Amino acid sequence: MDFSSKLLENAVNEVSRLPGIGKRTALRLVLHLLKQPSENTKFLTEALSGLRENVNSCEKCHNISDTVICAICSNPNRNASLVCVVEDIRDVMAIESTAQFRGLYHVLGGKISPIEGIGPQNLQIESLVHKVKEGEIKELIFALSSTMEGDTTNFYIYKQIESYDVITSTIARGISVGDELEYADEVTLGRSIVNRIPFEQSIKS
Amino acid sequence: MDFSSKLLENAVNEVSRLPGIGKRTALRLVLHLLKQPSENTKFLTEALSGLRENVNSCEKCHNISDTVICAICSNPNRNASLVCVVEDIRDVMAIESTAQFRGLYHVLGGKISPIEGIGPQNLQIESLVHKVKEGEIKELIFALSSTMEGDTTNFYIYKQIESYDVITSTIARGISVGDELEYADEVTLGRSIVNRIPFEQSIKS
Repeated sequence: MDFSSKLLENAVNEVSRLPGIGKRTALRLVLHLLKQPSENTKFLTEALSGLRENVNSCEKCHNISDTVICAICSNPNRNASLVCVVEDIRDVMAIESTAQFRGLYHVLGGKISPIEGIGPQNLQIESLVHKVKEGEIKELIFALSSTMEGDTTNFYIYKQIESYDVITSTIARGISVGDELEYADEVTLGRSIVNRIPFEQSIKS
Repeated sequence: MDFSSKLLENAVNEVSRLPGIGKRTALRLVLHLLKQPSENTKFLTEALSGLRENVNSCEKCHNISDTVICAICSNPNRNASLVCVVEDIRDVMAIESTAQFRGLYHVLGGKISPIEGIGPQNLQIESLVHKVKEGEIKELIFALSSTMEGDTTNFYIYKQIESYDVITSTIARGISVGDELEYADEVTLGRSIVNRIPFEQSIKS
């Protein structure tokens, strides 16, 4: 693209470095900001720098939090001995929105991925193993995505804690509620048959 | 969405005010910035505020430019008496990338749109009419999009300049090069037949 302004070119280049945003989209977004009052750009840039400079993570679960201990970890009504292992804050938000889980979380900050150069030392695994060793956790629920990286991470953590007195489980995989069986993939459908549950249990939940 | 951090919520809200970016995408973009070194956020916010605060438009054509007169308007090799009327800088970039136009541009900054509250007084129409009155322009090419708003804007400008000694034209509408006739819409196909050009002319261009 041939820009008539270095300032514009620079702004478009920076915006297009964001994931999933190409040069055309970046130009559209930047021109939108130019048509808006300059306060809007100020609010946007201040919100971004404010977050980046002052972001904190909870000392216990490593989730993004403005306080030293996050609202979930410091809630006395939640079951601190039941911990759900997730990849990032989006998973926490997704599970919280179901209102079905009353335990705590442990946010790993990613998955083990040799291709992206992410090893166990880059994730919050040591502190999780430490919690298990100290006997703080009775049950650990693995809720990572069921990809090769997710399975590897689950297995790596499991190997480190299997000798301790802790129950481990993974979230159920199966056909989505409301989905047609004929459109489900074979792996998911197969798992949902192998891991079938008693009918009496299904009508209660 | 239930955020664990006000800083995060604020950043996501500001990013999701951009057109075509929902809350989920905004969260993905913001989390991406958090995983990157903090310089990346600094470069992004500085580029955006730098543009918004120092942006300038060319005094002659009103295109975005870092100089008082833009590079196109100040190029002595371009034909200053041939002016192409466009909506915004994206149209200038699109036409420039064809390398088929050696005249100048006049950037209106939008189209007349009563629904969006944009009237002729919000666009750079007066200065265009002034240029025509002064006899600076021999031919005016209308290159607005062929929507109701574009046609209204063309007609509004045409009415103001028709009594002056200026040739007016609009860019050709027709089937895209490489497109199959059977998939073209009727209006475009119809126009391309009505506005057919001599075969000898078509094989030269």
